[in-house]
Amino acid sequence: MSSIKTASNVTAPTQFLDVRGRSYAYRRFGGGPGLPLLCLQHFTGTLDNWDPAVTDPLASGREVILFDNAGVGRSTGEVPPTVAQMAQHSTAFLEGLRIDECDVLGYSLGGMVALQMVQIRPSIFRRMILVGTAPRGGEDIMHLEKPSLAKRIQDPANRGYDVLKRIFFTSSPVSQAAAAAFVQRISERKEDREPAPGPKVANAQMAAFREWEHFEGERFADLKAIRHPTLVVNGVHDEMIPVSNSYRMGENLPNAVLLTYPDAGHGSLFQYPESFTRQAAAFLSSSSESAAF
Amino acid sequence: MSSIKTASNVTAPTQFLDVRGRSYAYRRFGGGPGLPLLCLQHFTGTLDNWDPAVTDPLASGREVILFDNAGVGRSTGEVPPTVAQMAQHSTAFLEGLRIDECDVLGYSLGGMVALQMVQIRPSIFRRMILVGTAPRGGEDIMHLEKPSLAKRIQDPANRGYDVLKRIFFTSSPVSQAAAAAFVQRISERKEDREPAPGPKVANAQMAAFREWEHFEGERFADLKAIRHPTLVVNGVHDEMIPVSNSYRMGENLPNAVLLTYPDAGHGSLFQYPESFTRQAAAFLSSSSESAAF
Repeated sequence: MSSIKTASNVTAPTQFLDVRGRSYAYRRFGGGPGLPLLCLQHFTGTLDNWDPAVTDPLASGREVILFDNAGVGRSTGEVPPTVAQMAQHSTAFLEGLRIDECDVLGYSLGGMVALQMVQIRPSIFRRMILVGTAPRGGEDIMHLEKPSLAKRIQDPANRGYDVLKRIFFTSSPVSQAAAAAFVQRISERKEDREPAPGPKVANAQMAAFREWEHFEGERFADLKAIRHPTLVVNGVHDEMIPVSNSYRMGENLPNAVLLTYPDAGHGSLFQYPESFTRQAAAFLSSSSESAAF
Repeated sequence: MSSIKTASNVTAPTQFLDVRGRSYAYRRFGGGPGLPLLCLQHFTGTLDNWDPAVTDPLASGREVILFDNAGVGRSTGEVPPTVAQMAQHSTAFLEGLRIDECDVLGYSLGGMVALQMVQIRPSIFRRMILVGTAPRGGEDIMHLEKPSLAKRIQDPANRGYDVLKRIFFTSSPVSQAAAAAFVQRISERKEDREPAPGPKVANAQMAAFREWEHFEGERFADLKAIRHPTLVVNGVHDEMIPVSNSYRMGENLPNAVLLTYPDAGHGSLFQYPESFTRQAAAFLSSSSESAAF
């Protein structure tokens, strides 16, 4: 358990867990009455991409566990090309920590991993928060080659995290101001940072998105078996994983509340961290069988 | 001002306000630091159709004002056949009460009236809650002739409020249990009740729905000018005014948060009154320029 002093992603030390010959990088901080909250990260994101304005308020009521999947950051091995294999790593990591049940915050690619994990082992999660993500068979998932996105991603003016301002936020002045504050926050950590993922990580994760778009049989039927209280969150102008995917989760998960944010894109949780953490904490603190909170 | 003792729609006396030769029936109860909350009712609904489990918790932080539009309940005159004319009545009623600015809870038809009011006079509302409703140009609005709805509405087993169990809730056991509790709550008031609206009310309001489906120019462009913080709420299985209409409001209103409830139909606010009033009160209590709360 980390002390209060280090209950922040700005200062929490990176730890390493050895499981079956692999080493997984993670951070674990905070505490309180809640179950631990496993945080599963987005495309090419590492531990350092978790906004302290999101993780730290949540860490005041429970342990927050940030996790780099295989091949990401300082976790060893290769990034697997399917969500199913990523879910095996996440599950093995929780087993290695001897955590039988926790809550999960799955963001973007991480939300897909969470959905896959809970279908294989329903008891692993009590409550799920799925932000900016898509179910298997979802539409228009991470097509970075789309002209609207490619133009912004390839802009030579992007330096470091600047691209995140362009693709996680809208072009409005208010959203761009929130983007600048977000980049400032994730830059606060100065030491013990993760290496930036290269093209191998991006290529394998992109293959996983392509595979995730496929479905067999009745579309979204797999969601109907997930009875877990779930909070689905998205920005209405998400161009990376359109909000329609969140609508389909709200409609097909039998026990999901949907919350959408205005003037927001893929990074809605980073644009509205006060609202998001207030809603997420209220949702996680509920002991009801219903997702309504 | 009503005393605490009568801060309930079970006991609040019906009052009558004369404005320009018309008499409007209303109830006004509760109090607190918030602006008054004007509640605009659904198709064929009267003051008696407001669930005390929704109105009473909200009345602990502000005055709640329930209103029968012209020709409904004991309000005099004819029900007009357009939302625009209904909005004129609601606006005249607020003027008669000398209320320059308030918050609004518009449910179903009442949400359309609220949207019309705020477009004509933006300063009339500070914050808006729109439940189970549709913007002008919305789709599949109150087509009670659809086989799926007609079958339930015309079921001879329906007595009194029983039809509401069939059309405001889903067929799941949990939703039907909530339906029975809702009907029990709106039946608690025994005296000073409103007369049940007849076919004239239904026919004129249905004409208003048909007119509201029409739009000119760019669909939903009218929503983009409404900057008010707005909370849009719906059940994902609403068959009377499908949730897609709420999606379009979340996407086109520039400052709207959307909240959807699982296993719920048109009456989501009555199915989850504890969650709804908690969320609504938090939203109304915010003084932010943003709808995010």
